[in-house]
Amino acid sequence: MSSLIFNKFWRAAIVVIGNEILIGRVLDTNSHKVAKMLTLIGYDVTEIRKVRDEVEAIAKAVKELMLDNGVIITTGGLGPTYDDVTAEAISFATGIPLCLKEDALEMIEKRLKDLGLELDNARKKMAILPCTAVPIPNPVGVAPGIAMFMPRTKIFSLPGVPKEMEAMMESYVLPLLEKENLVARAEACEVLENVREADIANEVGSFAKEHPEAYVKSHPDIEGGRSYVKLCIMASAESKEDAERKAKTLLKSLVNRVQQGNL
Amino acid sequence: MSSLIFNKFWRAAIVVIGNEILIGRVLDTNSHKVAKMLTLIGYDVTEIRKVRDEVEAIAKAVKELMLDNGVIITTGGLGPTYDDVTAEAISFATGIPLCLKEDALEMIEKRLKDLGLELDNARKKMAILPCTAVPIPNPVGVAPGIAMFMPRTKIFSLPGVPKEMEAMMESYVLPLLEKENLVARAEACEVLENVREADIANEVGSFAKEHPEAYVKSHPDIEGGRSYVKLCIMASAESKEDAERKAKTLLKSLVNRVQQGNL
Repeated sequence: MSSLIFNKFWRAAIVVIGNEILIGRVLDTNSHKVAKMLTLIGYDVTEIRKVRDEVEAIAKAVKELMLDNGVIITTGGLGPTYDDVTAEAISFATGIPLCLKEDALEMIEKRLKDLGLELDNARKKMAILPCTAVPIPNPVGVAPGIAMFMPRTKIFSLPGVPKEMEAMMESYVLPLLEKENLVARAEACEVLENVREADIANEVGSFAKEHPEAYVKSHPDIEGGRSYVKLCIMASAESKEDAERKAKTLLKSLVNRVQQGNL
Repeated sequence: MSSLIFNKFWRAAIVVIGNEILIGRVLDTNSHKVAKMLTLIGYDVTEIRKVRDEVEAIAKAVKELMLDNGVIITTGGLGPTYDDVTAEAISFATGIPLCLKEDALEMIEKRLKDLGLELDNARKKMAILPCTAVPIPNPVGVAPGIAMFMPRTKIFSLPGVPKEMEAMMESYVLPLLEKENLVARAEACEVLENVREADIANEVGSFAKEHPEAYVKSHPDIEGGRSYVKLCIMASAESKEDAERKAKTLLKSLVNRVQQGNL
């Protein structure tokens, strides 16, 4: 994937936390949604890592990804159970000790009151965050998220429950990141019937090399003995409208070239 | 996740290759399926990484994961297009140079003949593999997989098309790994209604600590204002039947304890 801007500031990584994903019990869709959201506001997602509910494994992933990425989103591990260790891992990765955060505790008490539930030690644990963390309100569940504004990387830790994660991306993370946004992206796709990917590989390859500013991709598929190729182009521009126009124009010229090459 | 056996030999990692996944266009389900397959034959999946179609990014992930894992499965990047660079990346990660492999070329020619297609340079590229690679037959598509038997790690590179990946796991990778298999796994789950995860967190936590040989997990959910918790236990044993029996017995005793704790 090419980008208008290559520096670390615009590079993002996602860390998905949870043994249930690594043993194949639960299909992770969070990283897919977060990747799309970040891409469309101009970030280049460089890597997605899925790790166990272990302080060391999470901290290692976050620490390594901080070297190269301006934004890290983690999902999972913020709940009340014994294997929810994300706050501890973020503390470990950033070197910032844990505190019982009053602002997070207030958020938890308010949400529990809304839901008619009581504060106990398991729930109180969700307010123990790195001391400099900004708690992110959870409009759906109880556990607050964690925002860490480190010198060159912002870390946002969100819950693993998809509805909670999405609500917190929409209400907190995206508005905050969009303020700094210089690039918008849009994509356009077209399906070519009775074409095989290998037959158009050369044309698509040379087109991609001529347009490093766009992300060009062919997706092959076979159905009922007939082969299809879906051609997609993602383009970047200063506004969403310009990006859409650019993606459509580039796609049209790619489709023309491919069809001429296959006459 | 606990395991009967902790050494590297039984640790596995998955590397998913493809920009389409990192920009959120395609939802990766391959890593989920592979993780489940490996877990059920006794492997501990330690990490899943999703990286771009870039030689350096793929090679870095494979090289790092080789340190700690006896098996690495990669998916994607084996096709004929300009951005299919997995073979090159495996060569880079292992230090074994690339060769035009006659055995792989024969596989490709045979598959092309079956499909009524012709060999061209784009397709010939799929036979350029690390010189010591064993090509894995592809019963669904054209691109052969790559098996690399390194001193302490086996690397299997499979195509990204889910049907091809699954067929090659079933026909080649799993039978080969199962031969060395000492452990089988099985899981049992039960749904508890009108329970909140935080209310049973202490009981589940202490049960998990008493049974480090099993993988214990509660999954919370809310539906129509009522809250559910799904309790699951994955157990290991020498045979599948024993593992199933063990998982059921442990689950029964966990459910009993949780219900008594909530009277």
